[in-house]
Amino acid sequence: MKELKTMNFAFVGLGLMGGSIAKAIKQNVFESGTEVFKIGTCPAATSDSEKTSGKIFAMDVNEESLLKALNDKIIDERFSPLETDEMLEKADFVFICLYPKATLRFLLEHKEAFKPGSIVTDISGVKTLIAEKIFGEENSTSEKATQNGQSSVWRDDVDFILGHPMAGNEKEGYSGSDGKVFEGRNYILMPQKSNREENLCLMRELITKLGIKRIIETDYKTHDHKIAFTSQLCHVIASSLVDSAEDDKITAFGGGSYEDLTRIALINAPLWTELFLSNRKELLSMISSFEGSLSKIKNAIETENAAELNSILKSVREKRAEMGKI
Amino acid sequence: MKELKTMNFAFVGLGLMGGSIAKAIKQNVFESGTEVFKIGTCPAATSDSEKTSGKIFAMDVNEESLLKALNDKIIDERFSPLETDEMLEKADFVFICLYPKATLRFLLEHKEAFKPGSIVTDISGVKTLIAEKIFGEENSTSEKATQNGQSSVWRDDVDFILGHPMAGNEKEGYSGSDGKVFEGRNYILMPQKSNREENLCLMRELITKLGIKRIIETDYKTHDHKIAFTSQLCHVIASSLVDSAEDDKITAFGGGSYEDLTRIALINAPLWTELFLSNRKELLSMISSFEGSLSKIKNAIETENAAELNSILKSVREKRAEMGKI
Repeated sequence: MKELKTMNFAFVGLGLMGGSIAKAIKQNVFESGTEVFKIGTCPAATSDSEKTSGKIFAMDVNEESLLKALNDKIIDERFSPLETDEMLEKADFVFICLYPKATLRFLLEHKEAFKPGSIVTDISGVKTLIAEKIFGEENSTSEKATQNGQSSVWRDDVDFILGHPMAGNEKEGYSGSDGKVFEGRNYILMPQKSNREENLCLMRELITKLGIKRIIETDYKTHDHKIAFTSQLCHVIASSLVDSAEDDKITAFGGGSYEDLTRIALINAPLWTELFLSNRKELLSMISSFEGSLSKIKNAIETENAAELNSILKSVREKRAEMGKI
Repeated sequence: MKELKTMNFAFVGLGLMGGSIAKAIKQNVFESGTEVFKIGTCPAATSDSEKTSGKIFAMDVNEESLLKALNDKIIDERFSPLETDEMLEKADFVFICLYPKATLRFLLEHKEAFKPGSIVTDISGVKTLIAEKIFGEENSTSEKATQNGQSSVWRDDVDFILGHPMAGNEKEGYSGSDGKVFEGRNYILMPQKSNREENLCLMRELITKLGIKRIIETDYKTHDHKIAFTSQLCHVIASSLVDSAEDDKITAFGGGSYEDLTRIALINAPLWTELFLSNRKELLSMISSFEGSLSKIKNAIETENAAELNSILKSVREKRAEMGKI
């Protein structure tokens, strides 16, 4: 059984998310004295204090980020884009922390460079785009589907695990990264038939060490459906709410609600443009559904229907209170 | 010059907001050793250590809240609804902490009971409804308007100051009250021509003691216009977002955004029904304007117009960043 502490981690992209994960791994895997623990049916690690400690590598187009991370003693070695394959050959656990399309492109372009037996994971906020190209038209709840003629293009000896940490902040780049952003958050895994149970165990163990509260395991289509609502729709709403403000002095009249609803409108425009368009159908359907609820409330206000309005708000309060319990 | 510490405060309604203000006054006016300080052109208080310390009174329909507040040593004396006038006769500074329509009704019904020379203020989230009845069709930026035949029905010897603390939480009642909710928040005052400068000074001093970061002074129509956006529209959106959720397990897929956007959907249904309907025209106009922005973004997604989407999101980020500065 592999042990996290002895593995070499590699980051493809050391921005906000890559930097945050690298910091959390540095602190919680390499620096903490916590014992490796057994989760569910995972095999116990073979204790061997003689083993060499693993390292953290990173590649990024931004050399300054790499130098800063080296200086922060978060990474042990930096690689330029041209040295990518050299890094991948030495890495046991690769985190691809790029935008969705770039993640797919990277996987396909560097497929042959990954070390045999290594674990590769991504953090992309949309999955169908990537999963259908890599694994073929399969999802974890159905048999290997071939009706569209697509089948897996992935290597059997490199285990690619689809993952999505539901955390972040409104900053950008390595300088905004923070190893604490995962504490108390959700992490979604979309295990595929090809994933090895041993590697999924290691992935779960690593995620737990990041401080994550809950690991959700689902298929990638469900992921894209749910995320269209909890994440993308919220960013669309927050952006609309800022766009519709009559001026940028409005927060002088704020009581916290407007500020809370629009914090995520401090948005990374190119990333979210790509996320919105990559999950277009699901997102459009969620926007329509939200518009329906908004219309219902608007209509009760327009017609001065106090009983109806009170009844909607009462059931909303109950539903939201229920949500707080899980 | 009156001094806050020597005044008797009375609370009409000791719920979430009344309780929170009472707690803050108890702690920051009566218990803290801070000196009374001079703001702007306000006259300095005449220091007189012999003066009797003021008290805090409260009236509420909920006797349990009053007993709890007595037990918490937040109030010194409790009054039943039937004893209201007895309380008002002894009070130098009255906080009316009722729903908007009940505030107006209370002012009119108990007009003659207020102590001559006293200051009366309210916390209602909509103001036009109250102000036009009490002061007549006047606002602070125009001459005393009489075109609608309405003029002030208020007493000359009792100073009623329109106020709105922009703070709160999603709890309900005295048991949810918290003297710290005002820290770092905004408080809106709508001074009228009839308000005495000396009393406005005391009001500002008291508000500052609550921990408020910024006092905004405006007219009540501007208040209702701005609040329709920063507060009421946000509650409509949060409620719609909960209403449109396909189930109450959705937060398992949450990354913080959905939770932040819907916290205020833990809404007090009767209060917000009244707030929405009392400011109906302004709110409907804000909903329409928000729908316009949402449509613009939706349309860019529908037509896969990445350039347009990126440009909207970029300007949204800049506008929101600007908002953070004030």
